[in-house]
Amino acid sequence: MGRVTRLHPVLKLGPDTAVRRTDTLAVEEPLEIRLDGEAFQVTMRTPGDDVDLVHGLLHSEGVIASAADLLGARYCDGVGPDGANTYNVLDVALASTARPPAPEQRRRVTTTSACGVCGTTSIDQVVKQTGHPLGEGFRLPTALISAAPDRLREHQKAFDKTGGLHAAGLMTTEGTIVCAREDVGRHNAVDKVVGWALRQGRLPLSDLVLVVSGRASFELTQKAVLAGLPMMIAVSAPSSLAAELATESGLTLVGFVRGERMNVYSHPERVLTPAPVG
Amino acid sequence: MGRVTRLHPVLKLGPDTAVRRTDTLAVEEPLEIRLDGEAFQVTMRTPGDDVDLVHGLLHSEGVIASAADLLGARYCDGVGPDGANTYNVLDVALASTARPPAPEQRRRVTTTSACGVCGTTSIDQVVKQTGHPLGEGFRLPTALISAAPDRLREHQKAFDKTGGLHAAGLMTTEGTIVCAREDVGRHNAVDKVVGWALRQGRLPLSDLVLVVSGRASFELTQKAVLAGLPMMIAVSAPSSLAAELATESGLTLVGFVRGERMNVYSHPERVLTPAPVG
Repeated sequence: MGRVTRLHPVLKLGPDTAVRRTDTLAVEEPLEIRLDGEAFQVTMRTPGDDVDLVHGLLHSEGVIASAADLLGARYCDGVGPDGANTYNVLDVALASTARPPAPEQRRRVTTTSACGVCGTTSIDQVVKQTGHPLGEGFRLPTALISAAPDRLREHQKAFDKTGGLHAAGLMTTEGTIVCAREDVGRHNAVDKVVGWALRQGRLPLSDLVLVVSGRASFELTQKAVLAGLPMMIAVSAPSSLAAELATESGLTLVGFVRGERMNVYSHPERVLTPAPVG
Repeated sequence: MGRVTRLHPVLKLGPDTAVRRTDTLAVEEPLEIRLDGEAFQVTMRTPGDDVDLVHGLLHSEGVIASAADLLGARYCDGVGPDGANTYNVLDVALASTARPPAPEQRRRVTTTSACGVCGTTSIDQVVKQTGHPLGEGFRLPTALISAAPDRLREHQKAFDKTGGLHAAGLMTTEGTIVCAREDVGRHNAVDKVVGWALRQGRLPLSDLVLVVSGRASFELTQKAVLAGLPMMIAVSAPSSLAAELATESGLTLVGFVRGERMNVYSHPERVLTPAPVG
């Protein structure tokens, strides 16, 4: 399979079926880019063609203008819990012709744990930051999970006109959307609904579900966990790191909701199914 | 219409039609967040519910834990070319109970021009950074634009398995994809193909087209312009700022490619249509 896709256990639910399978997820892992040994940026990416990625990124940041401005790039320092190189830290040697980045171009260099940058450290940081268990007694029947994307859709007024907006909504266990927001950035849409709830003193959101119009990335899943939500419903696919974070942190992650069919990637105990799990 | 959507002129092409219309686009504009007067982060967002956005963002960054950690937020300083407030700079007053961010949590604070943070300054910065005209003589017939999404799709091996990956590809005027990459982050996919080309000494890419599997954001359009590409084809909708940047910088931006139908948002002179434009 390589590092572009990864297998993850999934509970596949249909109108009258509930079966355990293995699903193939797109791999998402942090890449720390260093310039001459100094921390520069961390980006969540699918491993592969990292040297091309760094060339393209440094070009659009104005650091390099041609290939000659970059002397070399090598994986370093990133050692995972098993002692093997994570291939998630890339140190770039710049030529004297390169334009060193301004301090404000450096960003997100927070994952510098002893074990190197890897999915595990990213997950550990979130779990450590949470500090509260996610709604233990929370349950939701499959009928309401199936209905969630359409309920959210009713609030996507601007999407109808533009086709260009992501949406996020908070849904009760009765299936009512209490807050929905649209934005060109999916992380912004989630920040807007969580911020709305925070201002009302409703955090942790242990009795609501987060519904998102697209895919579930690590970043969105992290926001759901930090807001104390017990469940997240995504219309499309999760990334590997999103599914792993959900598993580790106690979040129920449901994806690929298509009518009465859906995939449960973590903690299916919160999903009330009409059919027994086989 | 408000600030969530904005009208943009578009050339709508069909199998036998070419008509000028106005299209409704999702608004994308920078928001600069300041903490007690000091630059913190700039995020591209759809205006609206900015105070909620800031609460949610600061919560997931670990800066605030409850609404009481934030004393107030007010729009400041952001004055556009017309002298009016842009409502794109929000200054947040933190309570003493808040946890001030670490230096590395600050990011992307590059747009601090005298006229305040607005779409115009974001566009000006890209146009200034480019320095080379985009492929003047470049032309592409509609038949090849229609074919582009399927040609890219043939290279989306991991998408077929996961449904969770974005893709970007570089296509010649003969319709050949010379480089295609998949990634959980759409910006990474573009960085990977541009970086591939850069390493081959092929920049500026004045004789190729960038094809992307999803929507066209400001960030992706910026990367296309900086790489010198004369045309970008997006399967879905562009944002307002993407269409405006394309118009100002000389990039031909084609979106909503559905079979023989497509929308041209800027510089249609590079699109060879079978039907006369009516």
